[in-house]
Amino acid sequence: MTSEVVRDAYERIRGLVHRTPVMTSATLDRESGNRVFLKCENMQRGGAFKFRGACNAILQLTPDEQKRGVVTHSSGNHAQALALAASLQRVKCRVVMPTNAPEVKRQATRGYGAVMIPCEPTLEARLATAERVIAETGAVMIPPYDDDRIIAGAGTAALELLEEAGDLDVILTPVGGGGLLSGTALAAQTATHPPRVIGCEPAGADDAYRSFKSGVRVEHSTPHTIADGLRTTLGERNFEIIRNHVADIVLVSEEEIIEAMRFVWERVKIVIEPSAAVAVAPVLFHRLDMSRQRIGVILSGGNVDLSEFFALLRAKIK
Amino acid sequence: MTSEVVRDAYERIRGLVHRTPVMTSATLDRESGNRVFLKCENMQRGGAFKFRGACNAILQLTPDEQKRGVVTHSSGNHAQALALAASLQRVKCRVVMPTNAPEVKRQATRGYGAVMIPCEPTLEARLATAERVIAETGAVMIPPYDDDRIIAGAGTAALELLEEAGDLDVILTPVGGGGLLSGTALAAQTATHPPRVIGCEPAGADDAYRSFKSGVRVEHSTPHTIADGLRTTLGERNFEIIRNHVADIVLVSEEEIIEAMRFVWERVKIVIEPSAAVAVAPVLFHRLDMSRQRIGVILSGGNVDLSEFFALLRAKIK
Repeated sequence: MTSEVVRDAYERIRGLVHRTPVMTSATLDRESGNRVFLKCENMQRGGAFKFRGACNAILQLTPDEQKRGVVTHSSGNHAQALALAASLQRVKCRVVMPTNAPEVKRQATRGYGAVMIPCEPTLEARLATAERVIAETGAVMIPPYDDDRIIAGAGTAALELLEEAGDLDVILTPVGGGGLLSGTALAAQTATHPPRVIGCEPAGADDAYRSFKSGVRVEHSTPHTIADGLRTTLGERNFEIIRNHVADIVLVSEEEIIEAMRFVWERVKIVIEPSAAVAVAPVLFHRLDMSRQRIGVILSGGNVDLSEFFALLRAKIK
Repeated sequence: MTSEVVRDAYERIRGLVHRTPVMTSATLDRESGNRVFLKCENMQRGGAFKFRGACNAILQLTPDEQKRGVVTHSSGNHAQALALAASLQRVKCRVVMPTNAPEVKRQATRGYGAVMIPCEPTLEARLATAERVIAETGAVMIPPYDDDRIIAGAGTAALELLEEAGDLDVILTPVGGGGLLSGTALAAQTATHPPRVIGCEPAGADDAYRSFKSGVRVEHSTPHTIADGLRTTLGERNFEIIRNHVADIVLVSEEEIIEAMRFVWERVKIVIEPSAAVAVAPVLFHRLDMSRQRIGVILSGGNVDLSEFFALLRAKIK
């Protein structure tokens, strides 16, 4: 894949996606010692950058494929994004979701009009159920990250960031399956002075880090992290791009993720999910050995289950 | 007071205040049936619109007054705002704060460099302590809302909103002491087509509503509301302006405040405090009997105690 696919994707999807704001914070700049530009994909439609890739995939379906509809298996932001993108194009969307997925995610995905297909909470069951749906309906599989259309769509957030912030020295993104990191790495190549692209990963789910450092993709891992969007295993296509175009991958602790998330909520006054905070933590906690640099951070999403917090608040008015 | 004082205040403070973003939300527009513009004073320095009035007051001190410093009694956003504005101008700031004020507010105010003076948690003790500080130090009292400088400063948020959003049919603000509402009402008069200005108040702290409806300022009330910024009693100067320039005051329930707050956090992805949600609730819950109108809402602040929420989150990584 070349960086041209990201430009092509952007031309395709720009009428459907939000051009999300780029925010700055004097406090963050001071704490970090750098000039930091936050690309607010938490404010993207569906609450995450995932909508970009989903649109890019949906808009490339043939008329016949549009009739058959799409399917995916995910309990996270990709499911919501695909459901929303499909509904906007009047394409039927089926989502295979494990029975133990949080009710809030089930509701959100159903809210965008997707047909929910429950399955046992194992990867085998998810794959088998998706295969059965494809066999029965002819639906087109749209995977969450290991897919050229998804990667190119994810990269469009960095294109907008570069347009708005101008030259950057570095762009940081979280890395889970690698869709956002690989897309961003391709997008960065389009700049006159390409920024270095660095992936940020929880130490408790460090398969991308180990793959990057060893040069061999780690196939399995047992993730332990609060960043629920980053528990997936690095994809094959993603790894190829990351290996060639990413400058480094840094690890952050669970403590740092929560502190970075709290910093952004309290100081920047925006709601980000733990996965997004993973790319803020290295800036805030001086993990990059950089100063006076212009750093872009892609805030990947803002879908947090707030029911406990609002239950606490509600208890106060009784 | 005339609307000119708001323009004058803006010329005075514009180099110090953030020009906060104006955000829109397709979901909010759809739910409300109107076009809604959210003026994000939650992203103002110090986390609330209060910084505008504090700057306007501090910048009008005489050289002699600057030497003597300022004092206020408040446990809320005004104390933080005054402390910050004073520190930027190297003016000493003393804050009389009741001993039962939340630790998070005490820390924030001290963090901006204010000298904290504890007092018993009664209005009498607050006033007496402030009087003693003034007698001992010659400090200048900067009250939180019943003050021409504070009112004019508060109105500057609406000036920016009108500049950015263009003509509006209505502007909504929360009302507690009435600083923001009265300042906004003055600011609205500067528009070629002045919008109607409507105050929004918790039903459990309805002294402004009762004052407005009866034409006589209600002196005392026992507020019961989660909107901690709106538990104050309507000021005299504020009431005079509100009586003459405000179109209406609407009441909202505690349930509606919490639901509106949750809506903004979940859908707009920004952190607002309950007091700010008070002005969103009438739009979201159709309390205005309006449709297809262009409505501005001043989101007054975003200072929420998040310690319980992050304690829950932290418990998950143990």
